[in-house]
Amino acid sequence: MIEPQIPKGFRDFLPQQMMARRDIMRTMSDIFERYGFVPLDTPCLEYARTLEGKYGEEGDKLIYRFEDRGGRAVALRYDLTIPLARVAAMYGQLPRPFKRYQIAPVWRADKPQKGRFREFYQCDIDIIGAPGACADAELLLVAHAVLQALGFDNYLIRINNRKVLNALAAVLGIAAERIPDFLRALDKLDKTGPDAVLQDMAGQGLLAGDARAIVRDHLLSGGDSSAAVAALVAGSEAGAAGLAELDVIERVLAADGVDKRYYKKDIALARGLDYYTGPIFEVVVKEPRIGSILGGGRYDDLIGLFTKQSLPATGISFGLERLVTVMEELGMRGAEGSLTQVLVTQFSEELLDEAVRLAALLRTSGLRTELYHAPDKLKKQLSYAAGRAIPAVVVLGPDEAREGRAALKNMLNGSQEVLDQQDLPEAVRRIVA
Amino acid sequence: MIEPQIPKGFRDFLPQQMMARRDIMRTMSDIFERYGFVPLDTPCLEYARTLEGKYGEEGDKLIYRFEDRGGRAVALRYDLTIPLARVAAMYGQLPRPFKRYQIAPVWRADKPQKGRFREFYQCDIDIIGAPGACADAELLLVAHAVLQALGFDNYLIRINNRKVLNALAAVLGIAAERIPDFLRALDKLDKTGPDAVLQDMAGQGLLAGDARAIVRDHLLSGGDSSAAVAALVAGSEAGAAGLAELDVIERVLAADGVDKRYYKKDIALARGLDYYTGPIFEVVVKEPRIGSILGGGRYDDLIGLFTKQSLPATGISFGLERLVTVMEELGMRGAEGSLTQVLVTQFSEELLDEAVRLAALLRTSGLRTELYHAPDKLKKQLSYAAGRAIPAVVVLGPDEAREGRAALKNMLNGSQEVLDQQDLPEAVRRIVA
Repeated sequence: MIEPQIPKGFRDFLPQQMMARRDIMRTMSDIFERYGFVPLDTPCLEYARTLEGKYGEEGDKLIYRFEDRGGRAVALRYDLTIPLARVAAMYGQLPRPFKRYQIAPVWRADKPQKGRFREFYQCDIDIIGAPGACADAELLLVAHAVLQALGFDNYLIRINNRKVLNALAAVLGIAAERIPDFLRALDKLDKTGPDAVLQDMAGQGLLAGDARAIVRDHLLSGGDSSAAVAALVAGSEAGAAGLAELDVIERVLAADGVDKRYYKKDIALARGLDYYTGPIFEVVVKEPRIGSILGGGRYDDLIGLFTKQSLPATGISFGLERLVTVMEELGMRGAEGSLTQVLVTQFSEELLDEAVRLAALLRTSGLRTELYHAPDKLKKQLSYAAGRAIPAVVVLGPDEAREGRAALKNMLNGSQEVLDQQDLPEAVRRIVA
Repeated sequence: MIEPQIPKGFRDFLPQQMMARRDIMRTMSDIFERYGFVPLDTPCLEYARTLEGKYGEEGDKLIYRFEDRGGRAVALRYDLTIPLARVAAMYGQLPRPFKRYQIAPVWRADKPQKGRFREFYQCDIDIIGAPGACADAELLLVAHAVLQALGFDNYLIRINNRKVLNALAAVLGIAAERIPDFLRALDKLDKTGPDAVLQDMAGQGLLAGDARAIVRDHLLSGGDSSAAVAALVAGSEAGAAGLAELDVIERVLAADGVDKRYYKKDIALARGLDYYTGPIFEVVVKEPRIGSILGGGRYDDLIGLFTKQSLPATGISFGLERLVTVMEELGMRGAEGSLTQVLVTQFSEELLDEAVRLAALLRTSGLRTELYHAPDKLKKQLSYAAGRAIPAVVVLGPDEAREGRAALKNMLNGSQEVLDQQDLPEAVRRIVA
C-alpha cells in the first residue's frame, strides 16, 4: 500500500474550501473584466533562463528548477509578472496598451510555515504600453473595487513612488549604486520598526552628515511628512516627476469617488522588488495583522530584458491565500451551503426510470439536482441528503408514480407534501429560495 | 537580452483563445454542478511514488519526475484520477458517494506533435463510493448534457463493460494473465483495423481453436454482434453481471430522454488503461476524425492502492484540447468579440477627472468600461477602440463637460450623438445589445 500523502507546503482544496476560493476568483475576474482587463494563460513551466536573475538573490534560490528529459533547464513559474514580460516581448500582435489579468498558481521552494506555501495562487492585473500615472491609478481603482466587492472595509492602500525615493536618496548623499541597499533597509520598516531601520542604514554606511536626522524625522517618523519630503526632492527632475505622478493618482482616486480613508500617500513605502521604477503600492488590512494582501508597482525596464522595444508596464498582484485567511479570520463568509438544491431518491430498482425522469425534469428547469445512486434504504438516502445539507428531497413510491405525483421533503423544516410531478420544480424553488 | 521562448509542447493562451477556453470550462462546471458534482483542487506536484506504476510502462516514462531541494522524488501530475484516488484514501470526512469535478492542467513528457501537448487541461468527473451502474450512467448523462450545451450534435457515446470482455476472453480460452494483452490488442482496432488486430492477437498466441473465428466474426466484424457475444458470455457470472450493468445504463439513458442516435453498445470497445473493472465508455465525433473527445470507466480497485478500505469508483475525462480543436474546425464558435463594452476617451489632461467620473458611472451601472490611459490624439484613441472591437466610445470635450453632456460614438455603424451624461449607460446598452 502506498501511503496517501502530499509534499509539504502543498495543499488539497476539498469542495467546501474550493467553492469559497472559486467564488473569490470569480468576483475578481468579473471586476477585472469590468475595467477592461482580458484573461491570459501561460505555461506552468518556463525555461529556467527566463526566470533566473529576476527575483534577487534570495528569490532565485526559491525557484523550482529541474532538467527535463532533453536536458533543458526548466522551472516552475515563480510569479506571473516575468511570464507576462516574456509574453509582451514575444507577441507583436497584442494591443497597446495591453491590459491582462491572470489568476494562476505559482511555486516557491520556500520553508513551509503558517500562511506560507510552496504552491499558491496569484491574481494579477497589469497594463503594458501605458507610461502615464493614470494607468497606475486604474490598478488601484480595481483593487478598491475588488476589496469592496469581497466585503472588505478596514484596509489602507499605501502609495509611494520610487522616483521620489531615488530623489530623496540623492539628497541624502547616497550613491546611485547603493540605492537598492537603502530601499531594502527601508522595506523592513513594518517588520523591525524605525530604530532598527535607522541602525541598519547607519551600519551600512548609508547615512552621512544630516542624512541621519532627515531619515529619522521625515522618513521613519510615522507621521505624514510627505510635504517635508516633497520640499526636499521637488528640485530634482526625478523627484518632481514622481510627485506629479502621485498627484495624478490621487486625482483619479478622488474623481472615481474612493473615500479618502481607503488610501494614503506613504513616503516610507519601499516594496522589496528591485525592478520597480515609478509608482509603488500595497494594501494592508488593519485586522488581522497579516501584512499586505496586495502589492505592485511600475516596472518600465523589465520587459526590456526580453526585447529591444521599450514597453512601460505597471501591475498589481493580489495574494489569494491572504485574502482567504483574512476573510476566514474575520468571519466574512457564511458557512458554504450545498451546491446541490434537490436530491431525487431511488425507491426501488423498478422505479429507477421514473426517478431518472424526475431528475431530468428538475435539471431541465435549471435546478442543481442529484439522483441518488442506488435503491438503498430511504433512511440512508435521507441521511446522505442531510450530511450534504441538500435542502429538498424527492421521494417517489409506486403509488405516487402511478398517479403522476411525488413527495417533496423540505429538509430545512422537516415538512413534506405530495404534489403533481409537474409542480415539483416550482415547489423546490420555493424551498431553496 | 534573453530570447523570449517557451519550452516545446507548452503554450501561451492569448486573450481571444483564453476567452473561448474559459467559456467552455464554465459551461462544463455549470453542468457538472447541475448534476451534483462539487469542485476539488489538488496540487500540481505529487510525490513520485503516488503516480509511478499506475499508467503502464509507456505512461510511466512520460511522467515529469524530478528531485526537489530536499532530495525527495516529486512529479507533476499526469492525470486527475490518481490524485483523486489519493484524496479519497486520505480524507475520511468526505461524503459517500463523493461526486467531484476537477478542471486542471496535467503534464506528460510526450513527443510534441499536432494536437498533442506536454501541458494540457483535463476536465474530470468521478463518483466514489457508488458501486452500481446507475452511477456510471449518470456520468454519461453529464457527458451528453455538456456536449449538447457546447453545440455538439454529431457524436456517439460508445459503451462497453470490461466484465463482458473478461468473460469473452475466458470463453476464447485466454488465460487470465494474458487478458491485458488481449485488451491492448483490441484497443488498437480504431487505429489499425480488424485484420491487423486479428493478426496481432494470433501472433501473440492468444487465439486457439475456434477463438480466431469468433473474434473475427463477432468482435471485429464492425456490425452489431452484441446479441451473439451476450449469448457467449451470459453463462458466466462476470458476463451476466456485465450485461446487466449495460442494461441499467441503457435504461437510464432512455429514461432521461437521450436520443438513441447518440449512444451505442459497442462490444469491441476496450480502452487503454489497465485499471478498469466494469463499464467503460468513450465519445467519438464523426467529423473531424480526431479520435475520442472523452473517455472513462469504472475502476473499483484503484483506490485500494492507497487504503485498505474498498472504494468503488467510476469517472470520465473530457479532453479540453480536442473539444476546442473540434469546435474550431467545425466553426462552432463565432469570432470572439470584445469583453469591453465601452471606452471612455481622455480629451485633455484637465478633463481627466471628468473622464474618470464618467467611467465610474458606466461601471457602476454594470457596463464593462475601459478608461483610455492618456490624453492622446482622439484619432489614436478611436483606433485603439477599433482594434479591440470595442463597440461604444465616449468623447468628452470641454463644452460637453460644462453642460453635463457627452458624445457617444457607435463604432459599429459610425453614428454619434451628444446626450446627457446620466443617459449614457442606457445608450451604451442599446449599442451593445
